[in-house]
Amino acid sequence: MAERRPILDMNAYAGGAEGDPLLARRMANVGAASVLFYDRPLALVRGRGVWVEAADGARYLDCYNNVLSVGHCHPRVVEAIAAQSADLAINSRYLSEVVERYLERLKATLPPALSNVVLCCSGSEANDLAMRAAMKTTGRRGFVVTEAAYHGNTLAVTEISPSSWKRGGPPPHVRLVPAPTQAAYGEDVAGGFGRAVAAAAADLDAAGFGLAAFFADSILSSDGVYGDPPGLLAPAVAAAQAAGGLYVADEVQPGFGRTGAGLWGFARHGVRPDVVTMGKPMGAGYPMAGMATRPEILAAFCEDTGYFNTFGANPVAGAAGLAVLDVIEDEGLIANAARVGGRLLAALQGLAAGDARIAEARGAGLFIGVEIAGPDAGARVRRLTEGLKARGVLVGAAGRFGEALKLRPPLTLTDAEADFFLDAFAQALGDLPDADQSFFS
Amino acid sequence: MAERRPILDMNAYAGGAEGDPLLARRMANVGAASVLFYDRPLALVRGRGVWVEAADGARYLDCYNNVLSVGHCHPRVVEAIAAQSADLAINSRYLSEVVERYLERLKATLPPALSNVVLCCSGSEANDLAMRAAMKTTGRRGFVVTEAAYHGNTLAVTEISPSSWKRGGPPPHVRLVPAPTQAAYGEDVAGGFGRAVAAAAADLDAAGFGLAAFFADSILSSDGVYGDPPGLLAPAVAAAQAAGGLYVADEVQPGFGRTGAGLWGFARHGVRPDVVTMGKPMGAGYPMAGMATRPEILAAFCEDTGYFNTFGANPVAGAAGLAVLDVIEDEGLIANAARVGGRLLAALQGLAAGDARIAEARGAGLFIGVEIAGPDAGARVRRLTEGLKARGVLVGAAGRFGEALKLRPPLTLTDAEADFFLDAFAQALGDLPDADQSFFS
Repeated sequence: MAERRPILDMNAYAGGAEGDPLLARRMANVGAASVLFYDRPLALVRGRGVWVEAADGARYLDCYNNVLSVGHCHPRVVEAIAAQSADLAINSRYLSEVVERYLERLKATLPPALSNVVLCCSGSEANDLAMRAAMKTTGRRGFVVTEAAYHGNTLAVTEISPSSWKRGGPPPHVRLVPAPTQAAYGEDVAGGFGRAVAAAAADLDAAGFGLAAFFADSILSSDGVYGDPPGLLAPAVAAAQAAGGLYVADEVQPGFGRTGAGLWGFARHGVRPDVVTMGKPMGAGYPMAGMATRPEILAAFCEDTGYFNTFGANPVAGAAGLAVLDVIEDEGLIANAARVGGRLLAALQGLAAGDARIAEARGAGLFIGVEIAGPDAGARVRRLTEGLKARGVLVGAAGRFGEALKLRPPLTLTDAEADFFLDAFAQALGDLPDADQSFFS
Repeated sequence: MAERRPILDMNAYAGGAEGDPLLARRMANVGAASVLFYDRPLALVRGRGVWVEAADGARYLDCYNNVLSVGHCHPRVVEAIAAQSADLAINSRYLSEVVERYLERLKATLPPALSNVVLCCSGSEANDLAMRAAMKTTGRRGFVVTEAAYHGNTLAVTEISPSSWKRGGPPPHVRLVPAPTQAAYGEDVAGGFGRAVAAAAADLDAAGFGLAAFFADSILSSDGVYGDPPGLLAPAVAAAQAAGGLYVADEVQPGFGRTGAGLWGFARHGVRPDVVTMGKPMGAGYPMAGMATRPEILAAFCEDTGYFNTFGANPVAGAAGLAVLDVIEDEGLIANAARVGGRLLAALQGLAAGDARIAEARGAGLFIGVEIAGPDAGARVRRLTEGLKARGVLVGAAGRFGEALKLRPPLTLTDAEADFFLDAFAQALGDLPDADQSFFS
């Protein structure tokens, strides 16, 4: 089977643990499933706002962890979790006012047609449920996703998450399409992407699977952060829906205001999802996720099997979720993401214009990808990531070859903090060889 | 397709919402996925120890919700969650001392060979991971489970959870065996159950799937609570392992001391699991779960795909899990489960001896099933459940036909609280017609 390289944030740690007792304990406890960042993994002890503190006292600007999109340990979220945990944490076979209040707040932000919400524990569970709802509704079994998509970690969802695969190609019922880039589709990126989805759906039909759903993260995070211009996904969504498949908007990464234009990334593209899945920042660290859809889709799914989720929709999740929505609204975080993110992106694009080592800076709001140039871009990104760490900044990587820095700081990021990142980035970039020199030479 | 009836705790609510605005909101928000107990669902607002309080001020002895096995809102767990949430809640790509300390505490309770633990969010995620690890390790695709098993709610795990199916039979790669009862296997229950598993494995071999794993909850909760005598599962486990399959001990329900004989239910049977999955009471309401296995099984699984779980193994889960283990130890909850559970079971068996309406009382520790006699047992159990609610006690139902009351009170249950249950049960039983009269006559 062909070898593939999973994206950086799925890779098991491959280094040694010499001189680091905590790392040695981790390797002994978790073994081959120890996914860890950095050549020397970082032990963290505290988080406040955009900053995290390591066990050795070093502080880092967190430009990676989108779960904490309202800032690490936001006092209102912490208080909501503590207070509700002290009152009641029970499963949803009983009624709870706080949960219904949360669902109503959440639904008010979604297209009115998506009036049923199932809460669960993780984006993986939400996407697993979405796959099943799509199969049951359409009577089909095929799925189309982008080449380096990541939608989650269950058996079923891993089959539509090529960025998790270490070897081999897609299973028979899955078709991959390149992310919407000029390199893949030429000048008419959105149109080309749409035609690719149409062709993949036709291919699934010919193979007897049919298209159950087209899953797309509205900023194509793990493919390398492609969300611009608004409307980019519209022809692809239209093609999927015209082929009789559902469009599942995976908002696990872009959702909850990150793209700076409303709460949901799909809205930027003027498309109508049949299903929206969400997770990560939903509870600011409290494990919760969800799937919103039309009642008839959920009803069809429930014809064959019962679905119950023990921890999903417990009152603590409701309280945490409400606090997150309150903070986003009261602190104007969507507008802040748009403003600070726009300024940060412009600065990075300015830097890119004058430095051939940067292929492109792109994104929306505070979800930004910085693609590095050259055939050794993946290695360069890893070097940059380490260089940024040395300068007090945490980032991630994205793209099929790990060719782009992935930036997802808390939406509370200030201009000064953005400048801190920019300074560190310029310095770390200075460590790289020129664009025309191989990194390995 | 043949109709099946999912167990009571998987059924969508089928009543109306007249006069109950909160229920009407729930139905509008969650639609067909609204799984709710009782003819008139209960709105709960507070939990303390073994008691929960409803919105109307009524109090109920909670004999159902095993997630809260150390008692509702235990102050040490609430404090641990609050304190760690205020310090740091971040994913496990960074190191965290509290998480490693927790994993070491947990591992010390497990067979030493199972030295790798992967934390995730739900028992469903843990069992989904266990299925994949079993398939990869054995190179096979078949599974054997009991007739009314419940192992979780993902696409893959639902295929081995017959108690979730509303219609149809098992998929081609799944074989069902009756739970170990005299009715199914005659006098040699354990031996007969073992031979059934061996036959199912041979049948999977003949069908080209082979046996990847035999999944069994060590007290067969949803089948109706069958865990006695100790050793009951041993021949079945031996048969599965002799056939080259793994034995996955699903401890999501019986684990963490509930059976009153050590932390794990499988230990009562003198068997050696290849994989142990756990969840529900692990964080006393905080969403967390896990899979423990041998390093080579985990390593094999990780050859093909990366596995990362965003919320699993975050420091709050570590702190919550540690607090739960501390409380179980410091308050002597396993011994209490054995003593109070033994006394409760004896009292129920005494009642059963003098009342033909009870077919059998069985169980271990504070996991007790009370099987009701007669062809209309499922309807009688539903009546009993309502009758107990009217008398201030919450219980559940189990068994392929919902024929048994399922009792899983917090492990802190006192003798006085057990007596409260017994009084209410005797009264509720009095509402039922005699055993020789149809419930419907």
